[in-house]
Amino acid sequence: MIDKPRDYCGIFGVYDHPDAALLTYYGLHSLQHRGQESAGIVTSSYDEEKGRWTMPAHKDFGLVLSVFDDQNIFKNELVGNSAIGHNRYSTTGSSKNPANIQPFRVHYRNGNIAIGHNGNLANAKQLRDRFRQEGVLFQSTSDTELILHLISHSQKDTQIEQILEALEQIEGAYSLVMLTDDKLIAVRDPNGFRPLALGKIDGSYCVASETCAFDIINAEYIRDVEPGEVLVIDQKATDSKEPTSYKLEPEYGTGSSQCIFEYVYFSRPDSKIFGENVDKVRRNLGKYLAKEHPIKEVIQKAPADKKPIVISVPDSSNTAALGYVHENQKLGFECKFEIGLIRNHYVGRTFISPGQKSREQKVRTKFNTVKGVIEGRSVIIVDDSIVRGTTSRYLVDMIRKANPREVHFLVSSPPIISPCYYGMDFPNPEELMANRFNRDISKMAEEIGVDSLRYLSADGLVNAVKEANPFDKDYCTACFTEKYPVPVNFGIAKEENEII
Amino acid sequence: MIDKPRDYCGIFGVYDHPDAALLTYYGLHSLQHRGQESAGIVTSSYDEEKGRWTMPAHKDFGLVLSVFDDQNIFKNELVGNSAIGHNRYSTTGSSKNPANIQPFRVHYRNGNIAIGHNGNLANAKQLRDRFRQEGVLFQSTSDTELILHLISHSQKDTQIEQILEALEQIEGAYSLVMLTDDKLIAVRDPNGFRPLALGKIDGSYCVASETCAFDIINAEYIRDVEPGEVLVIDQKATDSKEPTSYKLEPEYGTGSSQCIFEYVYFSRPDSKIFGENVDKVRRNLGKYLAKEHPIKEVIQKAPADKKPIVISVPDSSNTAALGYVHENQKLGFECKFEIGLIRNHYVGRTFISPGQKSREQKVRTKFNTVKGVIEGRSVIIVDDSIVRGTTSRYLVDMIRKANPREVHFLVSSPPIISPCYYGMDFPNPEELMANRFNRDISKMAEEIGVDSLRYLSADGLVNAVKEANPFDKDYCTACFTEKYPVPVNFGIAKEENEII
Amino acid sequence: MIDKPRDYCGIFGVYDHPDAALLTYYGLHSLQHRGQESAGIVTSSYDEEKGRWTMPAHKDFGLVLSVFDDQNIFKNELVGNSAIGHNRYSTTGSSKNPANIQPFRVHYRNGNIAIGHNGNLANAKQLRDRFRQEGVLFQSTSDTELILHLISHSQKDTQIEQILEALEQIEGAYSLVMLTDDKLIAVRDPNGFRPLALGKIDGSYCVASETCAFDIINAEYIRDVEPGEVLVIDQKATDSKEPTSYKLEPEYGTGSSQCIFEYVYFSRPDSKIFGENVDKVRRNLGKYLAKEHPIKEVIQKAPADKKPIVISVPDSSNTAALGYVHENQKLGFECKFEIGLIRNHYVGRTFISPGQKSREQKVRTKFNTVKGVIEGRSVIIVDDSIVRGTTSRYLVDMIRKANPREVHFLVSSPPIISPCYYGMDFPNPEELMANRFNRDISKMAEEIGVDSLRYLSADGLVNAVKEANPFDKDYCTACFTEKYPVPVNFGIAKEENEII
Amino acid sequence: MIDKPRDYCGIFGVYDHPDAALLTYYGLHSLQHRGQESAGIVTSSYDEEKGRWTMPAHKDFGLVLSVFDDQNIFKNELVGNSAIGHNRYSTTGSSKNPANIQPFRVHYRNGNIAIGHNGNLANAKQLRDRFRQEGVLFQSTSDTELILHLISHSQKDTQIEQILEALEQIEGAYSLVMLTDDKLIAVRDPNGFRPLALGKIDGSYCVASETCAFDIINAEYIRDVEPGEVLVIDQKATDSKEPTSYKLEPEYGTGSSQCIFEYVYFSRPDSKIFGENVDKVRRNLGKYLAKEHPIKEVIQKAPADKKPIVISVPDSSNTAALGYVHENQKLGFECKFEIGLIRNHYVGRTFISPGQKSREQKVRTKFNTVKGVIEGRSVIIVDDSIVRGTTSRYLVDMIRKANPREVHFLVSSPPIISPCYYGMDFPNPEELMANRFNRDISKMAEEIGVDSLRYLSADGLVNAVKEANPFDKDYCTACFTEKYPVPVNFGIAKEENEII
Repeated sequence: MIDKPRDYCGIFGVYDHPDAALLTYYGLHSLQHRGQESAGIVTSSYDEEKGRWTMPAHKDFGLVLSVFDDQNIFKNELVGNSAIGHNRYSTTGSSKNPANIQPFRVHYRNGNIAIGHNGNLANAKQLRDRFRQEGVLFQSTSDTELILHLISHSQKDTQIEQILEALEQIEGAYSLVMLTDDKLIAVRDPNGFRPLALGKIDGSYCVASETCAFDIINAEYIRDVEPGEVLVIDQKATDSKEPTSYKLEPEYGTGSSQCIFEYVYFSRPDSKIFGENVDKVRRNLGKYLAKEHPIKEVIQKAPADKKPIVISVPDSSNTAALGYVHENQKLGFECKFEIGLIRNHYVGRTFISPGQKSREQKVRTKFNTVKGVIEGRSVIIVDDSIVRGTTSRYLVDMIRKANPREVHFLVSSPPIISPCYYGMDFPNPEELMANRFNRDISKMAEEIGVDSLRYLSADGLVNAVKEANPFDKDYCTACFTEKYPVPVNFGIAKEENEII
Repeated sequence: MIDKPRDYCGIFGVYDHPDAALLTYYGLHSLQHRGQESAGIVTSSYDEEKGRWTMPAHKDFGLVLSVFDDQNIFKNELVGNSAIGHNRYSTTGSSKNPANIQPFRVHYRNGNIAIGHNGNLANAKQLRDRFRQEGVLFQSTSDTELILHLISHSQKDTQIEQILEALEQIEGAYSLVMLTDDKLIAVRDPNGFRPLALGKIDGSYCVASETCAFDIINAEYIRDVEPGEVLVIDQKATDSKEPTSYKLEPEYGTGSSQCIFEYVYFSRPDSKIFGENVDKVRRNLGKYLAKEHPIKEVIQKAPADKKPIVISVPDSSNTAALGYVHENQKLGFECKFEIGLIRNHYVGRTFISPGQKSREQKVRTKFNTVKGVIEGRSVIIVDDSIVRGTTSRYLVDMIRKANPREVHFLVSSPPIISPCYYGMDFPNPEELMANRFNRDISKMAEEIGVDSLRYLSADGLVNAVKEANPFDKDYCTACFTEKYPVPVNFGIAKEENEII
Repeated sequence: MIDKPRDYCGIFGVYDHPDAALLTYYGLHSLQHRGQESAGIVTSSYDEEKGRWTMPAHKDFGLVLSVFDDQNIFKNELVGNSAIGHNRYSTTGSSKNPANIQPFRVHYRNGNIAIGHNGNLANAKQLRDRFRQEGVLFQSTSDTELILHLISHSQKDTQIEQILEALEQIEGAYSLVMLTDDKLIAVRDPNGFRPLALGKIDGSYCVASETCAFDIINAEYIRDVEPGEVLVIDQKATDSKEPTSYKLEPEYGTGSSQCIFEYVYFSRPDSKIFGENVDKVRRNLGKYLAKEHPIKEVIQKAPADKKPIVISVPDSSNTAALGYVHENQKLGFECKFEIGLIRNHYVGRTFISPGQKSREQKVRTKFNTVKGVIEGRSVIIVDDSIVRGTTSRYLVDMIRKANPREVHFLVSSPPIISPCYYGMDFPNPEELMANRFNRDISKMAEEIGVDSLRYLSADGLVNAVKEANPFDKDYCTACFTEKYPVPVNFGIAKEENEII
Repeated sequence: MIDKPRDYCGIFGVYDHPDAALLTYYGLHSLQHRGQESAGIVTSSYDEEKGRWTMPAHKDFGLVLSVFDDQNIFKNELVGNSAIGHNRYSTTGSSKNPANIQPFRVHYRNGNIAIGHNGNLANAKQLRDRFRQEGVLFQSTSDTELILHLISHSQKDTQIEQILEALEQIEGAYSLVMLTDDKLIAVRDPNGFRPLALGKIDGSYCVASETCAFDIINAEYIRDVEPGEVLVIDQKATDSKEPTSYKLEPEYGTGSSQCIFEYVYFSRPDSKIFGENVDKVRRNLGKYLAKEHPIKEVIQKAPADKKPIVISVPDSSNTAALGYVHENQKLGFECKFEIGLIRNHYVGRTFISPGQKSREQKVRTKFNTVKGVIEGRSVIIVDDSIVRGTTSRYLVDMIRKANPREVHFLVSSPPIISPCYYGMDFPNPEELMANRFNRDISKMAEEIGVDSLRYLSADGLVNAVKEANPFDKDYCTACFTEKYPVPVNFGIAKEENEII
């Protein structure tokens, strides 16, 4: 996709490993695609000299490789054998609040506790209102902080009981890593909106949003944290070779509602999430796209010496494009996978582009066409999704300048029509291309300047995913279908939540 | 390639355009692959208030998008209608000297002059010794500075004569952009080692190392600056629609010796250099690789249901891999292009990895395998070149962990055996894999852990390039063949050159 | 004094003035001697666009003139017609916590509130324990934050009632400035430990720790905020020309216990505090010192042509030294005020001085002797107080090197023997010179290397102050006498308070 | 003085001492009053590993204690047993050029050489023009760089001969420290404009602008470097206990022309320069001021109970004021030295004060009056000099607000009427108060708002200095008398010198 949704996160945790902070650093780097705004690591360490537990932290705005840059500081600062880490989404806003960088950590009467959160609470407003009425003061504008107040205000005796009591009060999407003085706790909400996997390295347990974080450190994938599962990893877990598992009862829905958009776009193709390789699922999306829109329907009269070419928008739609090509070839329709777009991966702190032409220039700064490949050809662009459509239009403009015979646009998911309240930040509904043109495909094709535009159907999407991942879990498709599995308090204006 | 050579540069210039600095900024960004250590822009502007010409500059270590980050500063600082810019290679050394960041600019009795250089002077030591004897003081350790001293010390009357006299005294590889108070001058050495192209935007001339810099600003490619050509772009050129051209006589060789490694690895596939699209040439390298090493010879006994797959090391060898696949398919040998390696493009200021495992971790931080693609398959990895071989080994290790049936490594160029003295910085000859194993291919295959290793032959390389680019220019293949077209003073120890 | 006590603060506030932030900036600068570690300003502004009150803040470590350095930011950031500011003491610790920089500001259900505090709460531990038990989370390790939680947790209806309820629960030393959306509130604890004055500029009310903050902005001094007074300055106060005043009942003591050390050393000589000019009081300390220790007793046999000279330790003891000289002259004892020590006022971020000689070098870095003045003379050094005595010793060493005839040390206050729990941070009791030598004056003289050492008596100190400032207020002399007017929970170890 | 002249410098050097950089750091700190803009240290060290000499440097804008702030860096960076350092004047200009920060260091065919300069060359324009004609390129806009080019271009055999040949070509004011691989060289121009002293610490030689730099490191003052002397300190000097001395012949004047303004204002009172204590000389200026303007003439009718008080503008005129008081008392005229002005020594990066009132606010930010001291009194302000007069006026305004009976202003030097070309940067002649009012004293008194204004006469100044320092040296008084001892090329416009 060109036009990324924002407000996403990656989380990682490891328990009782001598290189806890270093492993978290690598893990977060591999999850960088889930959030580029800020990064943080918190470790837990028993300070023999002071005779008490400490929780060192290092957090800042920027990419993981930039935030943690000094080996010496790294060694001296983030001591301890257990650690959690968090990546946060990128926004262009100027009023960035450092208090919102996760993981959050606090000290309360039962010791230190830190938390990293991927998702969005659906009842944040109600909880915040209740606390405000009591006189509780907030340090951030994040809904994640509420979980800490719930734990600290719980009058239960043990920390685990306090945490369970707190989790029973929250609703919505949450994959969590929590670190206490001597425990690592991993939680997935009862609907299982966001992924979370359990792994093992050198006999120590670790958890991560995606398994690519295990690969980078050579850890082994054990299994997914289940929807509604609270996994407590402590010395006992290490000894018994099995973390203690608690179960949260779902208030909404009888089953799971895993985010299907993770498969469509968000997760890395080399990860396994929700129990299956993303590459495999995404390739199946290409296959179903070929079934619904075979080449022979898209291109009716290509000359014999100029086979149609299929190009992807690198890198996110590469796999779907390959799947599309291979299925067409299997169906006997001639076509070639080609690299028609080159992506410039160098990024900096900012992008300077004054005035009107800004967005167009931004597209040209990120992509260039390979003219010899496109010239005179029938071109099929495969992309995973379209959000606003503006950048798609500029991309098509660039391709047109290389003189193709014709240009068609295929999308390996249905039109996006409504917002996500479970952890992803799409533009306002009225800005979405499908809504701007009343879901009229021909007008949308005209808008982006292609000869034809075709989407995978919502049924095709779900069937493709389930064929590739035949487990008995269900998916949330709200952004394509407006069917929201957990009710959301729509009254939460962003402004209202904002404290100083 | 995984193991990049260093000491390379990208240059850009534009004359008489209201957005001179902004265009240079975009141009440099598109040339970022030619140098990631530092970036600089110098503009020329007549200051009405002071009644004289000024040459504002902004230079720093870092990527282009980071060095030039503040729109306001940008506008106020780099005023003027003409500009030149420069990118420099990335090194990991800690003792970085800011005085070496180009473009250099000085004021001398004939006004301001700035210079950006891609290449290496072969007679730098002799020139520097002569100047030191006279008592001239140097500001940098760069050979580029010598050109400025030669110009400033010339007793010729006009600036153009001074520049020509200076150029007649230097030898080796140099593509140059120079900015004077009222002229933009573009130079390519008589052997034409490095590329340099002339373009036009909104009626204004521009020059760049590669044409991808023209695409990003929507400029039109006119022609290459010819080997030995000195192009003077000034108001007269603008009026007459034709820059003035001077000719430098070659001292060595009767023809050109363009760097063939630009086609193999260095230039972007979407650029046109030496008069031809890089993508086209690189695809032909894949084709010749297929001719010399067709699949049926590489893989003798793949099962019918498991066609061999060809994967590239992203992104630099993508095109050669595609060329290899398409040629094999044309030859009737079954195989599939697949994406078996994922590259993490996020980079930061530094990479933390203590101790022994550092290099291995670095490879795992940059690449991950797509396990479902590789498992059980006969895998052919296509890469453009191998330098030390260590990182190739770690990459093959990772691929082996995904349980392929067999792994073969094909390189779309011959073994690298000797250093480049014309602008590229390979490791010491004894560190090159081909030399470490006495060019014994089977030992090299063993070293990197593959079932077989195959290179494109030197003849194949030259023929492939000439078939794709049938102009009458010749190429430098010294790094593959040890045939150096211009004699080099091998006495230049790095240390000796270093001043404070 | 050479050896400064730490843990002190300066506060300032102004209500309804177009230059609120700028005036606060100047005011804080004039109070810089009360705290050099950090500085902060919070303003209150009604944002017409957003339709709500905002409280911009700017805070950082460093001196006032460094923290607020950019005029543009200043203008755009700290908008609003009311402001409060705070300076904090200097410490050399490396683990500085930015969360502790005041003023603190929060948003709670009744709007925004910010607070700046000079002093120390005596019942902080009890309050913190109570809150922790409830589950309240803290953002800082400062006792000041407790006041905000008390206000926010109050279930009273109006903000003023909430604030009064909160103040009734705290004990100890506190001069406060508070800013709400539309009010400026100034408070002095019932014992009146720390100074706080009310002023007026261009018809707008302002408050400050010392009146030198009024002089710098050309404001008029109105009166002191009285011990136990809560002054509410709002639109009504502006209209009626009189702030509303509430009274806090003292729990301990029937009268006031103003810090006498403010007169001895801490306040600026050009300020008026506790209703009287500091210069006048300090000069009286010199006079009483002359009465108790006249020159003729200190120096018994100076040669006729070499009158004894009196030198001060610049700048803090200048006035007491002058008072001592003038009184002696009045009594007919010959002596001359001289400048025998020069102070280097340039300071930087840090002071580099490795190893053993560090403290000695530090003294030599700060002071130098004027040799011609001291040589051959009977020298009387007047200083306002001695803390550890080590630096006094090095100073005397330096003076001895200039070859005086003899050296005597007079202190314009009694020996410091016990800690302050009301806002000043002396070293541990066992480090105090008077305690190290069991208050044996002759041993202390030997320690610092003088021919004699003399202190002003405790009675002399109180009498001198009361003669100069004949109001009916009483003073706290606990650091000299161990008589603590408000009981303190001695269980507060620093460590215990420290949260992450 | 309130209104400081700029363009001044302090220099320091030490040879063969294990703490060379640390001593230079302290020395520069004690010379901080001679330049607050930038600071730099260069050391010389033989690198055993590389088998050659190196010259590490650390230089930056800011105060000495800020520029050199990290102990670790300090230790690792500035290695070597010999060092030179330099402080430069403070300017408020925004376009600061880091290339101008001294010491400069270069490598040329005879090794490394570094230089620090206090003064101004009178023939800089001619030298620069000659070099530019040859084609020499400059790195800075400083005249100091010319000395390095002269040395490097000298075709003499030995470095000492090269340096002497270079020095013979320069004219004007220069006290220099130079560091070569194995020598420390100290130079004072034949006229001896600027001070330079030789000292010894732990058997190692050191040199400094003023002796306060020796006091801070506990070094012993040996003697002044003589006008026209070139002192070479090397291993031979250390062995023979005597540096080698060369003599430069004066081209202008038969004797010396030491800067008398060093005694009036610039040097520290605790320093010895030109062979005598500054305090002693400055006190004599007060004595001569009393002879020319005794109290009885200044104040004709003070009431018996209100003796006139004499206050200084702290800290620079303290000594002259004391000298004035003591002489008056000796003459039988009643008066009292008082502290009527308090100076705030805290400074920051910048001072924010918008609009018209800026300068007035700046004075109020730096000074405050002690009201009780001034009220009702006849006040005599003693200052060392007046430059523009504007700030004097604001100071008198402040004093007037404290309700004195009358205010008189006495200056311990004559009116400043013309620029200095030998190392000090006064405002343009037309901005000087004495010139603005045609040297009409009564108009000047009116301008600054005093009842009377009196200056020390030029003869009085010279006589006072010579009485205190009865050596046979002469003084430059050009700023008071327009008598310039060395001709200056007045054609040097600042602009002309400026290169990029």
